[in-house]
Amino acid sequence: MTWRFALVIEPAASDDSRTDFGGTFTEIDPSAPALSVGELSTQRGDGIFESIGVIDGHAQEVDAHLDRLAHSASICDLPAPSARQWRQAIDIAATHCPADAEAVIKLILSRGVEHGPTPTAWVTAAEAADNTRARTEGITVVTLDRGYGIDVPARAPWLLLGAKTLSYAVNMASIREAKRRGADDAVYVTSDGFVLEAPTASLILRVDGRFVTPAPNGGILHGTTQLSLFEHLEALGEETSYETVPVSMLGEADAAWLVSSVRLAAPIRRIDGRDLALDAEATASFNRHLLSPRD
Amino acid sequence: MTWRFALVIEPAASDDSRTDFGGTFTEIDPSAPALSVGELSTQRGDGIFESIGVIDGHAQEVDAHLDRLAHSASICDLPAPSARQWRQAIDIAATHCPADAEAVIKLILSRGVEHGPTPTAWVTAAEAADNTRARTEGITVVTLDRGYGIDVPARAPWLLLGAKTLSYAVNMASIREAKRRGADDAVYVTSDGFVLEAPTASLILRVDGRFVTPAPNGGILHGTTQLSLFEHLEALGEETSYETVPVSMLGEADAAWLVSSVRLAAPIRRIDGRDLALDAEATASFNRHLLSPRD
Repeated sequence: MTWRFALVIEPAASDDSRTDFGGTFTEIDPSAPALSVGELSTQRGDGIFESIGVIDGHAQEVDAHLDRLAHSASICDLPAPSARQWRQAIDIAATHCPADAEAVIKLILSRGVEHGPTPTAWVTAAEAADNTRARTEGITVVTLDRGYGIDVPARAPWLLLGAKTLSYAVNMASIREAKRRGADDAVYVTSDGFVLEAPTASLILRVDGRFVTPAPNGGILHGTTQLSLFEHLEALGEETSYETVPVSMLGEADAAWLVSSVRLAAPIRRIDGRDLALDAEATASFNRHLLSPRD
Repeated sequence: MTWRFALVIEPAASDDSRTDFGGTFTEIDPSAPALSVGELSTQRGDGIFESIGVIDGHAQEVDAHLDRLAHSASICDLPAPSARQWRQAIDIAATHCPADAEAVIKLILSRGVEHGPTPTAWVTAAEAADNTRARTEGITVVTLDRGYGIDVPARAPWLLLGAKTLSYAVNMASIREAKRRGADDAVYVTSDGFVLEAPTASLILRVDGRFVTPAPNGGILHGTTQLSLFEHLEALGEETSYETVPVSMLGEADAAWLVSSVRLAAPIRRIDGRDLALDAEATASFNRHLLSPRD
C-alpha cells in the first residue's frame, strides 16, 4: 500500500521575517493539483532538493541534509533556507511516517512562479521502496562518462556541479542507460579518467584495507550517508580517506558500495563486467548502522 | 498587462489510440494549482519543451518546433509526440493570443507523475516581453565554458546534450553569471575551444561575407529561428554555412547575432569586451523576416 503526505511551507524566502517564527505549514493532498504551470521547478528544473531517509518515524541525518540544502541554495543564488523552518516541516512530515517502516522525506525549494516575488517550498513524505534485495544480494554497475574533466567544476561554477538541483534529467537518463547495458546502476567517471559518484548515490571502495570515496571537490555532492558511514567506520578504528580516484582504482578494490539515503548501503557485485567479492558481513554491519536512528 | 492561457492535453502518450482523434484539450487557469507534487517535471526536470513565437496570433515555424520536440522525446526515451494532437493544441492556444502583439506558446511534455502510468502534457500561452531594445540597440555577451569537449555529445548520449529538456537550471545559472560579469547573455564554448550556442539562443556570425552557425552535431540544439533565417538568407543569394567554429573565429566576425524564437535577432555589440559593429540594416531586415508570418 502506498501512502503519501505533502506540506507547503510559506514564506519560502528566508529574508522574510516571518520565517523567524517558522511561518505556516499547510498540509495538501499529495495527489491533487498543487503547483501552477508557471512554477519554475516544472518549467526549468530550477530549484534544489534533498531526500531524507526515515527509519521507523525517525528522520536521519537532518543536519547534514540541511547543510547541503543551504550549500545548494548558495550555488544556485537562491535565498538561504531557514534551518529552523525546514526542521519544523521535517518534524511534521516525520509524524506522518509509520513507526515501523522505512520512508523518504523530500525537501524542495523552487525558484517559485515565473516573474513571481518569492520561491516556493514544500516537503513530501512517502513509503520507501523495499531495498532488501539490493542491500543483501548487491547490485551491478557500469561506468559512464560524465563528460567533463576533473578540473571543470572548480573553474565553471555556473555548471552547478556541486548542487543538488531539480535538473535531474541527465541523472535519470544515465540510470536508463545503465539498465540498457544490463546493469542496475551507473558510476560516473570524468572524461579524463577519474571516478565521481553514481547518479543518485556515493561510491565507497575498500582498497588495501582502507575505505576510499572520491573527494567532493565541487564536482560531486557530499553524500550524507557516506559521511555517516565514514564516522561509523572511524569509530570502529577503520581508516577512511577522501581521494582523487583514478578509474584504475576500481580494479584494485576488493569491495565496493553505493550508499544513499534511502537504498542505504548496496554492495557492488560487478563493475563493468568484473566480478567483485560481496562482503556480506561488512555490508550487514553498515546497514545495521544506517538503519539505527541517527541525528 | 499580463495575460496567460493554459491547456492540458490528454492522453499525452502517443501510443494511446485516442490521440488519433486528437484526445481532449482542457483549458485550465494558468495561475491556479494544476500539477501535483509528484510530477517528475517538478521533481527532476524530467521532460522536454519548446517555446514557439507567436506574431499577431500566428504561431511561427510550428513544423520545425514539432520536429525538434520529437527529436528531444527520442533522446529522452519519451513516447513520440503526436504531431496532429500538438498542432491542434497550438491552434487553440494561438486563438487566445492577441491579433496585434507578440506572444509565446510553450509546449511541455513531462514524464508524468512518479510511478504513474503516462506522461503529462500541457501548453501555455503568454504575452511576450518587449524585446525592441535588444533587437535595435543590441546585446553584450561573454563566453562561458560549457565544461565538455566537442566530441563528448556523440559518445555520451545519456548527457542529453542535443535535447531541449526541462532541466534548464544550468542555462539559467549561466545567464545569471553573464549578468554578474556585466553582460546581457552568454555564449557557451567547449572546454577544448569551440563555440556552441547561447543558453537560450543560437549564434550566427558573419565572417568573410558568409553567415556561419555552429553545426548542431549532437551537442547543441538546432535553432528553429536560425533555420528560418538561413532559408531567408539563402533566398537572398547569401552564403550560409554550418561549421565547427573555433573560438578564434569570434575575433574574425564583423557582425554577430543571437537568434531565438521570442527575442528574434539580437545583434551582438560586444563579445568578451571586444566591440563589434552593429549592422542596423541587416538586423532590421532579419527581424522584418522573423516578424512576418512563417509556417
